[in-house]
Amino acid sequence: MRRAPQCLRLLGECTRRSLLRDSTAELRVVAASAQHQQLIGALEHRSSAADHSSSSSRPFTGGHAAHAFVLPSFGPVDPFQLVKEEIDSVSERLRRSIFTGIPTLRSAAQYFFKVGAEGKRFRPTMLLLMASSLSSVMPSADYLTVDDRPPNVHPAEERRRQQRIAEITEMIHVASLLHDDVIDNAEMRRGLKALNSVFGNKIAILAGDFLLARASVSLAALRDSEVIQLLSQVIEDLVTGEILQMTSTEEDLLSLDHYVRKTFHKTASLMANSCKAIAILGGQDREVAQLAWEYGRHVGLAFQFVDDVLDFTGSTMQLGKPTLNDLRSGLATAPVLYAAEEHPELNTLILRRFKSEGDVERAQELVFNSRGIQRARDLAAQHAQLAAQAVQSLPTCSNDHAIMCRQALTDITAKVLARKK
Amino acid sequence: MRRAPQCLRLLGECTRRSLLRDSTAELRVVAASAQHQQLIGALEHRSSAADHSSSSSRPFTGGHAAHAFVLPSFGPVDPFQLVKEEIDSVSERLRRSIFTGIPTLRSAAQYFFKVGAEGKRFRPTMLLLMASSLSSVMPSADYLTVDDRPPNVHPAEERRRQQRIAEITEMIHVASLLHDDVIDNAEMRRGLKALNSVFGNKIAILAGDFLLARASVSLAALRDSEVIQLLSQVIEDLVTGEILQMTSTEEDLLSLDHYVRKTFHKTASLMANSCKAIAILGGQDREVAQLAWEYGRHVGLAFQFVDDVLDFTGSTMQLGKPTLNDLRSGLATAPVLYAAEEHPELNTLILRRFKSEGDVERAQELVFNSRGIQRARDLAAQHAQLAAQAVQSLPTCSNDHAIMCRQALTDITAKVLARKK
Repeated sequence: MRRAPQCLRLLGECTRRSLLRDSTAELRVVAASAQHQQLIGALEHRSSAADHSSSSSRPFTGGHAAHAFVLPSFGPVDPFQLVKEEIDSVSERLRRSIFTGIPTLRSAAQYFFKVGAEGKRFRPTMLLLMASSLSSVMPSADYLTVDDRPPNVHPAEERRRQQRIAEITEMIHVASLLHDDVIDNAEMRRGLKALNSVFGNKIAILAGDFLLARASVSLAALRDSEVIQLLSQVIEDLVTGEILQMTSTEEDLLSLDHYVRKTFHKTASLMANSCKAIAILGGQDREVAQLAWEYGRHVGLAFQFVDDVLDFTGSTMQLGKPTLNDLRSGLATAPVLYAAEEHPELNTLILRRFKSEGDVERAQELVFNSRGIQRARDLAAQHAQLAAQAVQSLPTCSNDHAIMCRQALTDITAKVLARKK
Repeated sequence: MRRAPQCLRLLGECTRRSLLRDSTAELRVVAASAQHQQLIGALEHRSSAADHSSSSSRPFTGGHAAHAFVLPSFGPVDPFQLVKEEIDSVSERLRRSIFTGIPTLRSAAQYFFKVGAEGKRFRPTMLLLMASSLSSVMPSADYLTVDDRPPNVHPAEERRRQQRIAEITEMIHVASLLHDDVIDNAEMRRGLKALNSVFGNKIAILAGDFLLARASVSLAALRDSEVIQLLSQVIEDLVTGEILQMTSTEEDLLSLDHYVRKTFHKTASLMANSCKAIAILGGQDREVAQLAWEYGRHVGLAFQFVDDVLDFTGSTMQLGKPTLNDLRSGLATAPVLYAAEEHPELNTLILRRFKSEGDVERAQELVFNSRGIQRARDLAAQHAQLAAQAVQSLPTCSNDHAIMCRQALTDITAKVLARKK
């Protein structure tokens, strides 16, 4: 704790008081009682209050705060704000660590890591919160600075190693987006033109490969073969998920189980395995590592099912990509598969991948005239709840900061359900 | 040495006698004196004698021979025969280790690893010879069996770990071929249809990613972070080479230096770094590891420059891909860059990437009416010689098998120059 130890002590005290004062403890009880819908409502209400007050009531605003969880004097902890400063430093390091002397490759590789193009940084936020949730100490303010060592240098410090997992996870995630967008001929991503539509397919393929290569170098530097394997498995799962989607049989196309399996590979594996990697690097035992994996898996599944719903209910402006994109790509997601139980006519459309004139519109109509969207939301809610339960099942800890971060992990499960984009 | 120790002793004796009897020692002196062309001539002569006699005069033919270097009672050692049996077992394991339950992915990933589609298996041969060249003991016959442990299981035995490098290198190599063929819209590869033209671009991209993922899992199991990093660097270099080629400035397009740099990234890095990995896993010190790297680098450069020449002088039938492919793809390789020094007219054609009507034919004509092809061959010969010198510079060893494998590594440098396909 080279920087501002007194500030840290003050902040610790503030955190403790804040935890006692706000409704966090209460909410944990709510979550534990599995009434997850109530939690979502409560959090949504609290979020707007916090948004309203956050600019005026930060106890530490000057210079380098000890950590980014600068709480308003009332109201809740926003999971994203809690680690924002550290995430900013991880993002900055990520940008530097994918530097290359080849200008085109540099521009392409950095395209989705530029400030403003980084998306919600959902995965790194979740991972750093998981790291803190499992730690008996509050991370030192040192870790808010950018780690300027090259990717291939072995970091000794536990927190730096966990930050690397956050970077690597983002690299793998973006690499898979780049290849997916080539495969799907996508035009938009994160409200920007997809990389393939700016630089062409060739550069997009190579930029994806480059990110995978840098991710491998960075992984290697962690010198933990189990962690290396977990993240390598993710790359394989991403590919498997994409192939499962492309090569589905007729039976697969109509099967919710197949759909969930594909979704695990395409979305949840990255979150599950990276959460587990965080636990392993944090020195946790098998059981805790497995709970971290469960958390990531269920959040990932919930995340994707909500995404499927938003493809029907969102707007292009909010999502940064066109709506009804799944139907237009020939994909039957959870709302459609549920709707087909009420309207068997949908099966024919699913099997011909909505390719005949008017199929997309007809499918949309049938989905809206069914319980498909609600049932997909319910499925997402079940997984969000299971994720919250995984956090509740972690061994008891007495560290206030860890308790707050566990609460933030639970809050994330609700935010996933409530998200509009 | 569980299997046939007596056989091994006999074979060791045979090797010793064979080394004394044939012209190996002499040839090493020739190589050391840097008269590499003479060596090539001698080897070409010896190779045909060996081809002629190999079927009739093997001293050990029954059952599992101690190793695959079943020498004829006269004539030379063919580097490829020397480790053929072990390479067969490595190839079989490779096929098994990229198994997946997803049928399309399995077919695509295994496409270039099927018996008959594996190419010359040049890289794994070179790597196992390097492994034996640096070993004080002859590998046990146990290592001729297929290692059936899954890719993610850590092998304790040095030779098994080195075999894994041979597998991983092939996986990375084929992954890069798959992506390159998508990028170049290639139609043929190894005398077969290119994977993209059979399964489509999407599956080819994903199969490449899948191979990279399996390579990463296998690499992780080696639990040697330096080795993991060396091979991860290769993936980055492959990408960098491709991008250097795609984004060349006018100055780059006319520069031999740029061309050599690109060639290192695209071809030689894989050989250099995998050779170095073999040395590191063999417990060698920095200096020896660096010599192994130099060997791989120079062999890789020589290999590519010969490839460039064959694109002009070979036949489609021999090469398994069309000739003048480089010109048609807009690439000016060594013969063209040298020819341009005599015929500045070529510069215009190079800069417009041979895209105007008649450019390819005119460029071919100018190259044939110049010393371009000879100078490219000379450049290849220089690098082959440097590779041989790297082997000669290895610390003295008294192990006959290692000496024979070093000779085989030197012979490979000559074979690279003499190859017709």
